[in-house]
Amino acid sequence: MSGSLVSAGLVPAGPVSFLDGIRLVDHHCHSVVAGPLDRAGFEALLTEGAGPAAGTSSFDSALGFSVRRWCAPALDLPAHVAPDDYLTRRAELGPEEVTKRFLGGAGVGAVLVDHGFAADGLLSPTELGARAGASVGEVVRLEAVAEAVADAGVSAADYGDAVAAEVAARTAEGRHPVPVACKSVLAYRAGLDVDPTRPGPAEVEQAADGWLRRRATTGEPLRDPVLLRHGLWAGLDTGLPLQLHTGFGDRDEDLHRANPALLVGLARLVEPLGVPLMLLHCYPYHREAAWLAQVFSVVHVDVGLAVPYVGPRAATIVTELLELAPYGKVLYSSDAFGLPELHLLGALRFRSALGGLLEHLCATDELAPADAERVATMIGTDNARRVYGRMPA
Amino acid sequence: MSGSLVSAGLVPAGPVSFLDGIRLVDHHCHSVVAGPLDRAGFEALLTEGAGPAAGTSSFDSALGFSVRRWCAPALDLPAHVAPDDYLTRRAELGPEEVTKRFLGGAGVGAVLVDHGFAADGLLSPTELGARAGASVGEVVRLEAVAEAVADAGVSAADYGDAVAAEVAARTAEGRHPVPVACKSVLAYRAGLDVDPTRPGPAEVEQAADGWLRRRATTGEPLRDPVLLRHGLWAGLDTGLPLQLHTGFGDRDEDLHRANPALLVGLARLVEPLGVPLMLLHCYPYHREAAWLAQVFSVVHVDVGLAVPYVGPRAATIVTELLELAPYGKVLYSSDAFGLPELHLLGALRFRSALGGLLEHLCATDELAPADAERVATMIGTDNARRVYGRMPA
Amino acid sequence: MSGSLVSAGLVPAGPVSFLDGIRLVDHHCHSVVAGPLDRAGFEALLTEGAGPAAGTSSFDSALGFSVRRWCAPALDLPAHVAPDDYLTRRAELGPEEVTKRFLGGAGVGAVLVDHGFAADGLLSPTELGARAGASVGEVVRLEAVAEAVADAGVSAADYGDAVAAEVAARTAEGRHPVPVACKSVLAYRAGLDVDPTRPGPAEVEQAADGWLRRRATTGEPLRDPVLLRHGLWAGLDTGLPLQLHTGFGDRDEDLHRANPALLVGLARLVEPLGVPLMLLHCYPYHREAAWLAQVFSVVHVDVGLAVPYVGPRAATIVTELLELAPYGKVLYSSDAFGLPELHLLGALRFRSALGGLLEHLCATDELAPADAERVATMIGTDNARRVYGRMPA
Repeated sequence: MSGSLVSAGLVPAGPVSFLDGIRLVDHHCHSVVAGPLDRAGFEALLTEGAGPAAGTSSFDSALGFSVRRWCAPALDLPAHVAPDDYLTRRAELGPEEVTKRFLGGAGVGAVLVDHGFAADGLLSPTELGARAGASVGEVVRLEAVAEAVADAGVSAADYGDAVAAEVAARTAEGRHPVPVACKSVLAYRAGLDVDPTRPGPAEVEQAADGWLRRRATTGEPLRDPVLLRHGLWAGLDTGLPLQLHTGFGDRDEDLHRANPALLVGLARLVEPLGVPLMLLHCYPYHREAAWLAQVFSVVHVDVGLAVPYVGPRAATIVTELLELAPYGKVLYSSDAFGLPELHLLGALRFRSALGGLLEHLCATDELAPADAERVATMIGTDNARRVYGRMPA
Repeated sequence: MSGSLVSAGLVPAGPVSFLDGIRLVDHHCHSVVAGPLDRAGFEALLTEGAGPAAGTSSFDSALGFSVRRWCAPALDLPAHVAPDDYLTRRAELGPEEVTKRFLGGAGVGAVLVDHGFAADGLLSPTELGARAGASVGEVVRLEAVAEAVADAGVSAADYGDAVAAEVAARTAEGRHPVPVACKSVLAYRAGLDVDPTRPGPAEVEQAADGWLRRRATTGEPLRDPVLLRHGLWAGLDTGLPLQLHTGFGDRDEDLHRANPALLVGLARLVEPLGVPLMLLHCYPYHREAAWLAQVFSVVHVDVGLAVPYVGPRAATIVTELLELAPYGKVLYSSDAFGLPELHLLGALRFRSALGGLLEHLCATDELAPADAERVATMIGTDNARRVYGRMPA
Repeated sequence: MSGSLVSAGLVPAGPVSFLDGIRLVDHHCHSVVAGPLDRAGFEALLTEGAGPAAGTSSFDSALGFSVRRWCAPALDLPAHVAPDDYLTRRAELGPEEVTKRFLGGAGVGAVLVDHGFAADGLLSPTELGARAGASVGEVVRLEAVAEAVADAGVSAADYGDAVAAEVAARTAEGRHPVPVACKSVLAYRAGLDVDPTRPGPAEVEQAADGWLRRRATTGEPLRDPVLLRHGLWAGLDTGLPLQLHTGFGDRDEDLHRANPALLVGLARLVEPLGVPLMLLHCYPYHREAAWLAQVFSVVHVDVGLAVPYVGPRAATIVTELLELAPYGKVLYSSDAFGLPELHLLGALRFRSALGGLLEHLCATDELAPADAERVATMIGTDNARRVYGRMPA
């Protein structure tokens, strides 16, 4: 990407050099809104809240100022343009052109897409990949699979096997886009402070009996800890890497109960199995996550979602992560959702953050330039390609 | 303030420019000791502990070095003067002159004062405001109200209504100073990890029965979780913003049980009511608090108390807060208690921290100067004036 | 140390000046491997995990790059030498010469050694001290004492007194090396979130009855909370400083349950006794630990283990610690284990971190140079010498 964006003044010229030629693997993201957005709709996607509080604007945030600074030029506008002018130009260009510019500008070689959440009105993963000029892998959301099985009609006695079978089917080879990982949002549904062991069949049947009845009448989402654990282990049984939401997210979670440190018990159980655990987001608990990545060979980490949200502070977050995290266990993700701007900002901030850190380490003679090049490639793309064995070239 | 202090060399000239002309709203502070202080008395107020450990001095800390650097010149002393010389000059000038210099130097336009804690020997809020040249609002401390109701004599059956009535009376319009907010120290009394729901009348009566008896015999402070929750909801019923102690404080609390993240359940209950929740201090959990401020429209945050205490590191703390906190939800407070020095240092460090950050963002072209001016005004004064509707001009 | 290392280009010339002439007290470390190490053995000691994950190397980490940068020159190699070349030269020089170079280069005046863990194949504390040119104190590991008492054969009824007697014996004056402190790894064995009170004799006997039987048959380590608390209080009864593992460690612990903030209850109990509590490591909870050090006179803190591991980020960690920690309550430790490189890196990074901070504070006129000198001496050596009354000169 970056050659053209740098020459267009879209990314800082200096500090990204080590990341410059690298087409990133975005190992966890979502798709973007297909249609137009008014100001309220745009501002609602510019926060993990439900929208700005009365008397305030989502533009008045680290993320909002980043949009005005870094996304405006990609729409042929001056940096720091006013929000309304930005949205006017955005509407004028239309969603397709806007998406193409931002996703193309992100310079990603592959996107691994979780399309199991609020996907109405979003581009399909395949369309997303086309706009980005990137290959596409699918991340299979375990709770969505379980809810689909429940809604298709299943008895409590059959529930456990049916979910396992459906997870196996949705992660089978030969599908398109290729399934590359499972994902759990246990953090949202019950918190990460649950017993991590695999529940027995009788326990599953009993829990399913209760939940299936409640779902039939009230539409209750899957929140039962026993069934969540059942789904988690169905995912682990596929042998594919298991992505786990941790840390920063929306208000459906208790943030402190999404602390990745709480996954230590699961990590102990999974360590002998060798199935990669991919801790997503982690912020503001990324130092604790980094410790897990150092002491358990199966644990990998990223600081997705935080990277686009915190603006230039992404540099600090990445640096804090790399205090303890082995460089071979760190990946890039944007966790972008809804706005194509987030795909651009994620990539841009990550390049600048990691690139800037590596430049600094070289400038202070802590790191040799050849190692900096190697680390940039590891974290930008190679670690992901090693862990996600099925990823399309 | 700053014009004169800058020219007097009392504040750094460069980085505070965006905050320079702004008279801050200090939305949470306490009053200062009216009389003279000897070295032991001064050192005891220069720490959140009971005083320095044997063989050490409170002056040997980020706060202590700040006093010698930034407060000494306001007493016509050279920067970095020795502690004893500082205290000699301080005694020579006398409490009234010293207080006038420090509070005047803080450059605050309004002080919202919690005067419900250890207020013996302190200036009244009105006197404090006069020394500061600032308008004054009162913060009504809910636990102090409940204890006063108990001590005035009340039956367990009447306790619940009596507390609610007294809270309503103390927050009524037309009082002087004007009541602008309620405040709870739930974090000290029971921890923030309690059930946040409103307790029922029977539950309150039963809990009151036990506590009133114990208080009559042993003077037990209000620590019963049911009665603390009752008080909290009596405060919420006034519709005034509710200040909550979180994070950094003295050793009566369990710090980890004062983590603002634990307030997520309360935030969910209050969100539909629209009553502002004002999370005080937050440090070292300010990144978690910032997340609450992003995802709940009612949540607002500051890093008071930490700002004067951590010395030049206030810049980092404020920067960490603004990673996720919407700029429209962040306020200034000093949480100064006892020493007028803390009022000056709070304001000085906050100006320098936020001003320095804004300068840096402009210098790196992340922010336009016009936006930096606007943000400085929002955080320095406008956010507080919007949230505290009753604040006197 | 530093004169020669600086002139040899082994440490940065600038920022360490305030620490330059100071022979540090390393108040908590372990010994080093006596014999040769192959690459696998070396990499296993370069992480708190069991070794690098498949497809990765421990050299690709903040610590690994530090070894190549800062340890290579001490072996007459260029900075950033390749790992295999480093290990070849290391083997060529042999363990004795390598150890002498690294320990001598650390410039420590005293080492307080915990030799109660995995000590097979390590140099004795006395040998370690000789290689370092430092005086030696011994840290008595309470859980190791209790397990030795159990293995020597004791009845459940006698267990409590026998452990107390053995702790007293092992900490008696006149031993060599001189016992200077007790240490507990409660964090590893049960977590710091246990009841901190002293258990009664009947409780101890009952718990001992269970554990002694289990240990006889399965070799179960001491993990019973009652017996761990008994050992803790036996240590406190000696009146010697009590070191406590907190924060960063290996995967036998739940990191979040090793949070030093959880020790607030113990601190309250110990405060009136005046026995120093020495919180080791603390990272990534060092800001919480610093609060404990401010509010309890008995609490002291360090950021050992993190200091060598996080590379140049040690500067940030030390700075974060000193936000709230009184300067008179902060100590240096390396927590080095196994590799003599960790002794050098601990000292080098600590000098650079604290020295750099003090230089910065002087350069920004926050601190007077004379105070910076004094603080360097306090933290580098004087605080430890004050707290560990028995330390050999």
